[in-house]
Amino acid sequence: MSDVYVVGIDMIRFGRYPEKTVVQLAAEAALLALDDCGIAMAEVKAMYSGNIGEPMTGQRTLQLIGQNGIPVVNCTNACATGATAFREGWMSIKAGEYDVVLCVGVEKMGSGMLVKKKVGNEPLNAEGVIGSETMPAVFSTAALEHTQRYGTTFRQFAQVSVKNHHHSTLNPKAMYRKETPLEEVMSSEMIAYPNTKLMCSVNVDGAAAAVLMSEKKARQLGLLGRAARIKASALASDPWSERNQALQDINTVTRLAARRAYEMASLGPADLHLVELHDCFATAEILHYENLGLCADGEGGPLIDSSATSLGGRIPVNVSGGLLSKGHPLGATGIANIYEVVTQLRGEAGARQVANARVGLTHVVGLGSACAVHIFERA
Amino acid sequence: MSDVYVVGIDMIRFGRYPEKTVVQLAAEAALLALDDCGIAMAEVKAMYSGNIGEPMTGQRTLQLIGQNGIPVVNCTNACATGATAFREGWMSIKAGEYDVVLCVGVEKMGSGMLVKKKVGNEPLNAEGVIGSETMPAVFSTAALEHTQRYGTTFRQFAQVSVKNHHHSTLNPKAMYRKETPLEEVMSSEMIAYPNTKLMCSVNVDGAAAAVLMSEKKARQLGLLGRAARIKASALASDPWSERNQALQDINTVTRLAARRAYEMASLGPADLHLVELHDCFATAEILHYENLGLCADGEGGPLIDSSATSLGGRIPVNVSGGLLSKGHPLGATGIANIYEVVTQLRGEAGARQVANARVGLTHVVGLGSACAVHIFERA
Repeated sequence: MSDVYVVGIDMIRFGRYPEKTVVQLAAEAALLALDDCGIAMAEVKAMYSGNIGEPMTGQRTLQLIGQNGIPVVNCTNACATGATAFREGWMSIKAGEYDVVLCVGVEKMGSGMLVKKKVGNEPLNAEGVIGSETMPAVFSTAALEHTQRYGTTFRQFAQVSVKNHHHSTLNPKAMYRKETPLEEVMSSEMIAYPNTKLMCSVNVDGAAAAVLMSEKKARQLGLLGRAARIKASALASDPWSERNQALQDINTVTRLAARRAYEMASLGPADLHLVELHDCFATAEILHYENLGLCADGEGGPLIDSSATSLGGRIPVNVSGGLLSKGHPLGATGIANIYEVVTQLRGEAGARQVANARVGLTHVVGLGSACAVHIFERA
Repeated sequence: MSDVYVVGIDMIRFGRYPEKTVVQLAAEAALLALDDCGIAMAEVKAMYSGNIGEPMTGQRTLQLIGQNGIPVVNCTNACATGATAFREGWMSIKAGEYDVVLCVGVEKMGSGMLVKKKVGNEPLNAEGVIGSETMPAVFSTAALEHTQRYGTTFRQFAQVSVKNHHHSTLNPKAMYRKETPLEEVMSSEMIAYPNTKLMCSVNVDGAAAAVLMSEKKARQLGLLGRAARIKASALASDPWSERNQALQDINTVTRLAARRAYEMASLGPADLHLVELHDCFATAEILHYENLGLCADGEGGPLIDSSATSLGGRIPVNVSGGLLSKGHPLGATGIANIYEVVTQLRGEAGARQVANARVGLTHVVGLGSACAVHIFERA
């Protein structure tokens, strides 16, 4: 079976767009991605849409950019929504059904999305019963478990936020683009120890889109030059999400998806040149260093201290600014981090370019749960 | 590329289940489908869930029936939601990613779902601006256009409801199981001429599930005997959904999906032995006779008069009782009509068995829009 390639990809600058509809944001990203590879909407054979907030977002987006009767599938998967839409698009090409597929992720965020509400007459699910009913509490609990086990410090967790905010100053698509010194991060409002306000991801609107192609089609159109090969696409749910241990919940599903991805790509963490991972809170990034195998268990704190994950380091992480500073519009996040990796593999990342980037990994995880890990290689 | 088979399939009896959660209904259907083919949850490699009303339904269902870390994808596509989840499951096997996939469709319906509400700050979409803002109005307008063009009568439309209610008396899984004579149908409360209350689909809770397998795996497990081969799986969106003509809107997307399905299966309407189509209103069934090519344009009225679409006729339609009497729980409907066709192809439909059924077609269409057409063949 032949490979699948990302040939076009782009995103709108993340931010707040009260005057625009979710469909307008999605359409903007879609048109940017089509333009990125010079493909007309009429050439697209299927569309996969990732959006949590509204119904039939894919079809309504298509109405704005050129309705042509193609199959449209709307996917949701918590914070892995965009990556899931991307993955289903990849699957459809792999199945031989289509040769050109458009994947769009989009979200307009309200306020207060962090509190888990009771759904219908359902009991609260995993993320609601762990520690407390808020996302910050889940990631606080997980961090404290990490500290107890490995001695990870508040300062180390905070340093993640300093790094990612610094990276975002180099990314024109990020919501925030300013330095946040360590003292500022540590002294900002405490949300749930050890995460201060500057250690929580940014609640923004956003959209990102990708055009996927079969190898044959990309070759025909002469688009392999700037393309990224999808080496692995893995998705996992939590194998035991009732266990009520925050650290385990967050870790297990990521480790499962990562293992599948490395196996599929026939490579390991040492082969990666950059990683965009799910830093929904600063504490999460340290955990995911270990979950993705970038360092041994318990070495996440020392890894951030070593600057290995900063731009210029051994394995730069979240050079886009990450969810902490670029922003985290749920349905868009999974495709936005793929945008960053593909842009880096193309050597088009400007001031934040990772030197000689040939292989990159993206990771998103939504509690509930769904974790998607993708690995890309320069074509 | 080898074929994909439905090896296990079942549904709960459609009805009202105020005491059960949507996840409990989904889990019941999933366990029935697994039991139907004697497969343990541990053997399932991926899960596709179709549900409109709630988030992360797939994962929450999995928690009840045996969480094992598999990928879970949640799909929505209006009334084609269940069929879309089924189709994505088919695609994943076709892509060679998995050999055993569970697809579940479920919905708990509230009341008043027929009125289209404004979504966020979006303008009302196609189904909201056609004629009026209700579904009954859309299908009333379409019927009146058909009457103007072809002389189709109120009596002919009503006869569809008489037929489907009769069929449902033979189906233990239907919500309603009683005869509705023509006079009763025509004199029941008028909702939107020519659809009376007994010509509108039934608002019920429901769940249906299917186990799909690769040919190789089904053969290994000795499950081909009761399996149905998926000959075609087609999905379409409306090629021009802004045109504001009800009849055209309903027809075009179905014709597009049907054409794709017939091409994929390399067969035509004359090769079918039964059809389960989207009779969300009695008027819709007449339109879809023509859209699916069961008769020539304008011949839908005479077709119902001829009894060709009744059990025992040339091409029985909705022998399950259809949405009009079995019920229409949105996310479940697409897999429930596949259940009917597969059960018929197995020769296990009891009193409503279509003699010598070897090839069957299922059709669902959601305005907005998404139309899925599947064709199955006895293995």
